[in-house]
Amino acid sequence: MPDRTKIWTAGLIVIGDEILSGRTQDANTAYLAKWLNVEGIELKGVEIVPDEMGRIIEAVNRARTSYDYLFTTGGIGPTHDDITVDAVAQALQRAVVIHPEAKRILEGYYGDRISTARMRMARVPEGAELIPNPVSGAPGIRIDNIFMMAGVPKITQGMLAGIAGTLAGGQPVLDRSVGAWVGETAVADVLSTVESEKPGVQIGSYPFWREGKVGSNFVIRARERQVLDDAAERLMTALRAVDVDPIDGGI
Amino acid sequence: MPDRTKIWTAGLIVIGDEILSGRTQDANTAYLAKWLNVEGIELKGVEIVPDEMGRIIEAVNRARTSYDYLFTTGGIGPTHDDITVDAVAQALQRAVVIHPEAKRILEGYYGDRISTARMRMARVPEGAELIPNPVSGAPGIRIDNIFMMAGVPKITQGMLAGIAGTLAGGQPVLDRSVGAWVGETAVADVLSTVESEKPGVQIGSYPFWREGKVGSNFVIRARERQVLDDAAERLMTALRAVDVDPIDGGI
Repeated sequence: MPDRTKIWTAGLIVIGDEILSGRTQDANTAYLAKWLNVEGIELKGVEIVPDEMGRIIEAVNRARTSYDYLFTTGGIGPTHDDITVDAVAQALQRAVVIHPEAKRILEGYYGDRISTARMRMARVPEGAELIPNPVSGAPGIRIDNIFMMAGVPKITQGMLAGIAGTLAGGQPVLDRSVGAWVGETAVADVLSTVESEKPGVQIGSYPFWREGKVGSNFVIRARERQVLDDAAERLMTALRAVDVDPIDGGI
Repeated sequence: MPDRTKIWTAGLIVIGDEILSGRTQDANTAYLAKWLNVEGIELKGVEIVPDEMGRIIEAVNRARTSYDYLFTTGGIGPTHDDITVDAVAQALQRAVVIHPEAKRILEGYYGDRISTARMRMARVPEGAELIPNPVSGAPGIRIDNIFMMAGVPKITQGMLAGIAGTLAGGQPVLDRSVGAWVGETAVADVLSTVESEKPGVQIGSYPFWREGKVGSNFVIRARERQVLDDAAERLMTALRAVDVDPIDGGI
């Protein structure tokens, strides 16, 4: 049985020049974060690195020893700039080998159109397992605590759906939002007072402008429903005490 | 005069639990990347860290020595979880002081509504300069090669507009896209051949599905217009040679 009281953690390495050039907006971080939350695992750090062998190896070695799980997105395709498998293999000091099942999947998917470039996607660090890809041909790859996923969000989301419930995790973090049409600067003291009163509770403050007005959402996070609800009630009472109307559920 | 042939680099540290919980989609990375590109500076790495002092200090110390410039977003507001100024000060071994001009700005902005929490936003590492904030009250902060910006994208964008053209940078990277209704796996060899033929040229490959069809955009990057255009022409010729219709400008 996994330890449900332990805080299980994950890191993410986003690999790709296209994110660092601003051409592509990363969408995998937010999706993975929410997916992990349901699995009872906290995303504790993300690093976005270019398609450079040395940088990927360094980031992989730092993250795989810092967190329970490490996810990578990007760089597992067929082109010359897809070097994630090689980098992870080097980080782990493993050889790169052809995975026979991945070869079979790719041959089935591409048929006559199989090529040397496409067969690159059957390469894995020695000892790796495959992560099924329900969207396109090439599978993801798991080795030790490292999960190599695609850069294309739709593919990574399909891979994550397939491994949901299979990772050891703790109790999912619960959250509850309270909003108010007030700038966060007006109630900063209230937030810090309530947070300090309630052990096991985190309160984040997220200001915004909407409809020409300043508002804020306060997101309360805790692992126990009762603790969460107590903190939310306490916060709403404390806001009313300074003449701010709390909106349960957030704005 | 700045050295225009040097590759000027920047790192970004995104500070905030709300990004790592998946609640908020980071929008600062893509915007800053494009802004830097125009300034002739390459974004070479991004780290997303939680609102934890130790993690921020570690990331700041790593990045400020790895890149010419370091930007941070988030954690400079008035609430208890806003600890970026303290973390940067500790990383640089400076005291935290009240910046008199920041104090004046905040007093002018908030008038009677000034409070201890709001005055937190006048705190800076000793020796820092202010970055004007055209959107709301609290300024950004520059110290050494570190630029502390807001988490709210609209504010950070306003701050960046104000400092455009003031940083030493090199020649901006130029890019040109060529698209094709073909999967990247079909032309991976073509891409790597053309890239290896053309020094100073990078070709990124970005597949997508749209209108039920598979397509790819190939983004060619170079610092010289002539080199860029030569590479684009060469790529389009090479694609036609394998019966793929290139679409100049991308899809």
